[in-house]
Amino acid sequence: MLGKRHRVAVVGATGLVGEELCEIILARGHGFPDCFGRPRETQVCGRTVAIESMSPEVLAGYDVAFFCAPASIARELAPEVARHGVTVIDQSSAFRMDPKIPLVIPEVNPHHIHGKLIANPNCSTILLLLALAPLHREFGCTHVNVCTYQAISGAGKTAMGELIESTRGELEGSPQPAVSLHEEAAFNVWSHDSQIDVGNGYNVEEIKMIRESEKILEDPPRVTATCVRVPVLRTHCEAVSVTLGKPTAEARLREVLCNSPGVEIMDDRGANRFPTARKGVGHDGVLVGRIRPDLSEEMDASEGEQPRQYHFFLAGDQIRKGAALNAVQIADLMLS
Amino acid sequence: MLGKRHRVAVVGATGLVGEELCEIILARGHGFPDCFGRPRETQVCGRTVAIESMSPEVLAGYDVAFFCAPASIARELAPEVARHGVTVIDQSSAFRMDPKIPLVIPEVNPHHIHGKLIANPNCSTILLLLALAPLHREFGCTHVNVCTYQAISGAGKTAMGELIESTRGELEGSPQPAVSLHEEAAFNVWSHDSQIDVGNGYNVEEIKMIRESEKILEDPPRVTATCVRVPVLRTHCEAVSVTLGKPTAEARLREVLCNSPGVEIMDDRGANRFPTARKGVGHDGVLVGRIRPDLSEEMDASEGEQPRQYHFFLAGDQIRKGAALNAVQIADLMLS
Repeated sequence: MLGKRHRVAVVGATGLVGEELCEIILARGHGFPDCFGRPRETQVCGRTVAIESMSPEVLAGYDVAFFCAPASIARELAPEVARHGVTVIDQSSAFRMDPKIPLVIPEVNPHHIHGKLIANPNCSTILLLLALAPLHREFGCTHVNVCTYQAISGAGKTAMGELIESTRGELEGSPQPAVSLHEEAAFNVWSHDSQIDVGNGYNVEEIKMIRESEKILEDPPRVTATCVRVPVLRTHCEAVSVTLGKPTAEARLREVLCNSPGVEIMDDRGANRFPTARKGVGHDGVLVGRIRPDLSEEMDASEGEQPRQYHFFLAGDQIRKGAALNAVQIADLMLS
Repeated sequence: MLGKRHRVAVVGATGLVGEELCEIILARGHGFPDCFGRPRETQVCGRTVAIESMSPEVLAGYDVAFFCAPASIARELAPEVARHGVTVIDQSSAFRMDPKIPLVIPEVNPHHIHGKLIANPNCSTILLLLALAPLHREFGCTHVNVCTYQAISGAGKTAMGELIESTRGELEGSPQPAVSLHEEAAFNVWSHDSQIDVGNGYNVEEIKMIRESEKILEDPPRVTATCVRVPVLRTHCEAVSVTLGKPTAEARLREVLCNSPGVEIMDDRGANRFPTARKGVGHDGVLVGRIRPDLSEEMDASEGEQPRQYHFFLAGDQIRKGAALNAVQIADLMLS
């Protein structure tokens, strides 16, 4: 477990994920981690921090290095730092699909950890698999269809500011054109702004969810995704439809989800109380609700037949469990 | 076609749909329709209008009566007004599932029209079926899974004001508790606030989409839905997954959608330009884009196999084509 005795470096501490990482480490009673990036004095977690210039040699002096930097920087530095024996966890997409590098969600595939360099999955993948992996392990899912309701935080601090300014402009009658985002953000819903493959029509975010799920799960189900941005600050929601490998009673499915680490059931039909974007903020796991069998399935309940198709809805903090906390939890495992 | 010579009554003109109806009628060069409801002078479409008290006898003097009132009022008055020979189109849920009353989308099932009383479908159903019905007619869809991104307008004027005030409060650091909505609206995503069936876990909005689609389509596919609210003012978006009855080339599917009345294709992969909530405002039909085959389907493209599963994304003005315009178009057909 990452503890006070470990020397911790954060590369890219000024971004949303880097800052959340520093906060998680501080909240554990650890001293402020050393921060690396473009050398300057700046604010991180409300205090003035000296960002130091980085090199593999400098980073070699640490026990753990969290990379919260662009993929290009991770590609250049992370493997070399790991070769110096440092535990390196990379938030970027640089190594996620590299067959030699483990892609890890501690609640899902801790046994994949080997070596010193570990990739942190995409936020939407982490949140999906927290709920999906236990179902897959128990019931062998065959097909998964997920539609996302993704927060702006995934596009970074500037984009979050843009949502706020766009909304303020709209309320004051002076609409703002889109700047860093692909569309005007205020009161809008739009297809995820990641690059789209003109050939197959899928965007990078969707492909990440599909391919990363395949890498992380054993004998993976066929996953498909529609990734959509909503005007929300920092929680992703996902509507998930899953086909199980075997007919299963709803109570049994609920039991499995209830007992899954990182899953918090919020499914009060009587009170119409379910996961929402706002409720997901700051949670360490995912909130899961709206759990129900597919009504359209041809099935004779009077014959005791059980459904194979279920739907549920989840909400998870994209910056926390979707990124920073997952990385700290990987470090916990590696340093144990 | 509804023309200047027709005497038009609007019951419930002060609501969002009633007002939009009056605007559509005015834009056609028709005089201001006579408005009925709680008697008073009030503002409709920016002008002072005398709302008159209604009775079947008074409404019997009209050619058309649009009911934009609660289901209880429609149940009490609409059948009797229709018996007087008036063309009655009802926006409420009162008669939608009545097997004797046609439920009509003019582009989809105009041949269902008979009698003098017609029910207008739920907004999400109309928008879905504009795109789905032509695919179903051509390829015989077997399964449909839809996840909605629904605007606040569906909950009425007060709710729209609540979203604006909630957002303003959030930006000014004084969050507002939910009043008419089920959850705090600002920067949030939540399960549709309609009543939920504690037995099966589906909310009323989802059941409407499922049952109304079954009523409107011939030999209907099995439809399932997850209905979700997003902080958007007046456009619903829907992510639709459809299984066709026969393998179909993407080009052929696009051709069918392109030639479907009420469908406007907005699907520019190169420019990442797709339907959004904001772009849907004021459109007479639905914008459809993100059309793509399911990547997860097991299929040997090299053998010339074609996909059976497709996804697309749509945006449509919930108040306009989702309600008011559809009703006027029904009247057009009935008065032709």
